[in-house]
Amino acid sequence: MRPQSVQVPEDDDDNPISEIRRAIDAEDGSALLSIAETVHYADLASLYEELEDDERDFFFKTIGPELATDVVAELPFSLIEDSLSHFKPAQLRFLLGNLSDDDRVDIFQVVSKEAQVRFFSLLGPRDKELTKSLLKYEEDTAGGRMTTQVGRITPDMTVKQALAILRRDREDTETLARIFVVDEQGRLEGKVRLRDLAFNTWDTPIRDIMEDADEYILATEDQEDAARLLSRYDLVVLPVVDEFHHLLGVITYDDALEIMQEESTEDIEKLAGIAGDQTELSYLNTTSVMHYRRRVMWLVGLAFVSIASGYVMFRFGGVLQKAYVLSLFLPMVVASGGNAGGQAATMVIRALALGEIGAGTAIRIAWKEARIGIFLGITLGLSIAAFISFILPQFHPPAPESFSFYKLALAVACAITLQVVSATVLGAMLPITARAIKLDPAVVSAPSLASIVDVSGMLIYFGTAAAILSL
Amino acid sequence: MRPQSVQVPEDDDDNPISEIRRAIDAEDGSALLSIAETVHYADLASLYEELEDDERDFFFKTIGPELATDVVAELPFSLIEDSLSHFKPAQLRFLLGNLSDDDRVDIFQVVSKEAQVRFFSLLGPRDKELTKSLLKYEEDTAGGRMTTQVGRITPDMTVKQALAILRRDREDTETLARIFVVDEQGRLEGKVRLRDLAFNTWDTPIRDIMEDADEYILATEDQEDAARLLSRYDLVVLPVVDEFHHLLGVITYDDALEIMQEESTEDIEKLAGIAGDQTELSYLNTTSVMHYRRRVMWLVGLAFVSIASGYVMFRFGGVLQKAYVLSLFLPMVVASGGNAGGQAATMVIRALALGEIGAGTAIRIAWKEARIGIFLGITLGLSIAAFISFILPQFHPPAPESFSFYKLALAVACAITLQVVSATVLGAMLPITARAIKLDPAVVSAPSLASIVDVSGMLIYFGTAAAILSL
Repeated sequence: MRPQSVQVPEDDDDNPISEIRRAIDAEDGSALLSIAETVHYADLASLYEELEDDERDFFFKTIGPELATDVVAELPFSLIEDSLSHFKPAQLRFLLGNLSDDDRVDIFQVVSKEAQVRFFSLLGPRDKELTKSLLKYEEDTAGGRMTTQVGRITPDMTVKQALAILRRDREDTETLARIFVVDEQGRLEGKVRLRDLAFNTWDTPIRDIMEDADEYILATEDQEDAARLLSRYDLVVLPVVDEFHHLLGVITYDDALEIMQEESTEDIEKLAGIAGDQTELSYLNTTSVMHYRRRVMWLVGLAFVSIASGYVMFRFGGVLQKAYVLSLFLPMVVASGGNAGGQAATMVIRALALGEIGAGTAIRIAWKEARIGIFLGITLGLSIAAFISFILPQFHPPAPESFSFYKLALAVACAITLQVVSATVLGAMLPITARAIKLDPAVVSAPSLASIVDVSGMLIYFGTAAAILSL
Repeated sequence: MRPQSVQVPEDDDDNPISEIRRAIDAEDGSALLSIAETVHYADLASLYEELEDDERDFFFKTIGPELATDVVAELPFSLIEDSLSHFKPAQLRFLLGNLSDDDRVDIFQVVSKEAQVRFFSLLGPRDKELTKSLLKYEEDTAGGRMTTQVGRITPDMTVKQALAILRRDREDTETLARIFVVDEQGRLEGKVRLRDLAFNTWDTPIRDIMEDADEYILATEDQEDAARLLSRYDLVVLPVVDEFHHLLGVITYDDALEIMQEESTEDIEKLAGIAGDQTELSYLNTTSVMHYRRRVMWLVGLAFVSIASGYVMFRFGGVLQKAYVLSLFLPMVVASGGNAGGQAATMVIRALALGEIGAGTAIRIAWKEARIGIFLGITLGLSIAAFISFILPQFHPPAPESFSFYKLALAVACAITLQVVSATVLGAMLPITARAIKLDPAVVSAPSLASIVDVSGMLIYFGTAAAILSL
């Protein structure tokens, strides 16, 4: 029995994955095969990621192309081409034919051009045609994600005829949770549940028990929209159609789970200023150089943007020299803007990602964030003013005679309130603007926003201080 | 036919949701009812959120308790108690009895104590007992999330007997994608697929066609672990058992989607320093005061932490006054630490959330991030050194005679490299430490990390500059 945990525990020697490792170390093929057959292919794929090259070779040779098909389909895209190099042409022909059609297309989309040509020549005529037609769709569209292996029946069949068709196709069909009814031209007409077939008399016509297929998606639409439909309407299967309403395939609940997870990870990474596509490789299996590449651009770019803040500080050196006590609150005013702006941007970006915010609500959001920003700014301003008026004097900091602590409190409080309000509104509006000009809202990363409001923070702080304290 | 988009478009007058709105405005009950019956209850729930109180009353009165049950089950938790106040006791009794048992328990978990007592008294004896036993499990455990409505058969039944049982229960059963086989004590023994029943002869014993139920979860485990198992093994249904392996219920793929989405949103919000549980309400339906409450604590707390940075700057005033040109690069050194640390923390927190990082790998991660940090720090240091050596002098900034631009370049480059390396390692290790002491890794928000490395950045910058430039 497999351990319940998703983790593959490293210390536990009794689990089947550790046994497989030992079998590989001992090059004991028969032990490897007998354990591998009891383990889920998702676990075998995780194990494969951690093997050395010669161990991978032994692993695939031993488990054979049948089981290897399932393992390959679970591998991260970046490992697939290399994994297929372990097979001889005859085995590869079997493996490629044995893949479900959506997995096969995924593989064609991620391997090199040469591999594409070589693999294509190994396909049977039906698979060739199907793969060509599926490759039309971009990888991240509903069409690129769907499987064509779906139960199809026509409305004039009886339950008995339908069951006979489905029995014939059952091993090739990804799910029988929903069976779709199409007309003679293959246009989507309705759906039935397997339970409705199982629990109705054999002579019932399909037309009498089928329901409308109200939820569907165009093949050219974004896979994220497909995932949202599946989630919103609690669907197991979402039919994918072309512009003439022909049923092309289906997207299933497990695709939706994967899509949502990928998209969430991507949004989280972008928010932190991490560039590029999220690889399917896990954190530890991504090389340091790859991690470096995804982070360095933003880091260097933003560092140079920060020179703008430095320049403002440099220009206002006179103000700071007249009342160096102001430096005590400079980081606070500047950082609070970045924090408040980052909070607002995050809320709005997530709401956009979950489809909560439609077009035409930009003004409502700006107004809402302005109110929230004013509340937050005033709270911060009052707290800081109290601190400067009543607590700071106890420490006798060297301040010019020309102004009282109350005046200093007023200056800092005004500056921080202004900074928080402007940063909050900016943080909320930038992602909406990005969406309006067809950019991904998540390009407005928290660090880039912080770099922008650092500059405004410096200007607001020195400007307010100079005006109120007459420096 | 329903529009495919998840959004409820605000401008489009032809969609059924707009028609319902108009029927409510006109208080036209029969129009409302006839359109509502054609619309998915998830869309009705979204509409309900946007109605005024008296409109909600009219809405529920018109659609009746049957359809209202589905709508209530889809509402955000914070609206549920109020929504149920629209019903008379007899209707409420019907509605509560009509709910699926997991939805009913959810409702009991979120309403006030008085409402709990009142609602409980309206339940039938079987529902009372079931609700009491389910309320034992925390809301965020597998047991708190599961439904008990699952197809159960025993191994000694024939296919025909099994189908008869399932036919009787079919409307009460959440899914028939997997049917579970239990022994006489109700312990989980195996599973069959409905298709295996539908396509086998009626006298086949269940024992011959059942498979092992290898994937299951204990009722007391975290719902997130359940979602991960469903996702990893592409399951439609995950059985939930107690410590004696009794089958208690199941968690379905649509629960997994919801759980993952909730957890991702929570992680994203925590990373931005937004406190408290994510409400189920959408962004626009959350009041400004609630948004304010979730943001204000971190914002004020971090502002006061920033005084530490201010204090360092204040103490090193002498260094800055001797070479005010240093202020040009102060924001850069400080901000780069926050950016690099935030990137590292985000990668690690996401990897922990996806279960990619196990126990005992802390040292591997620290070493990996140290290498990445060194690469990043050196890249940044070299870029800045080049800028200061070759570009800055063209602008003739007023710098003391006592040091050359090359020396300034060396000082800034050393400081930024040190700052990036230390912030990267700190950013990676803090979430891991949090996990080790049983805290949520996502409490290490990017803003709090930035506040910490702001202080270290100031110290590193002034310390390095003073040493290298002999100030």
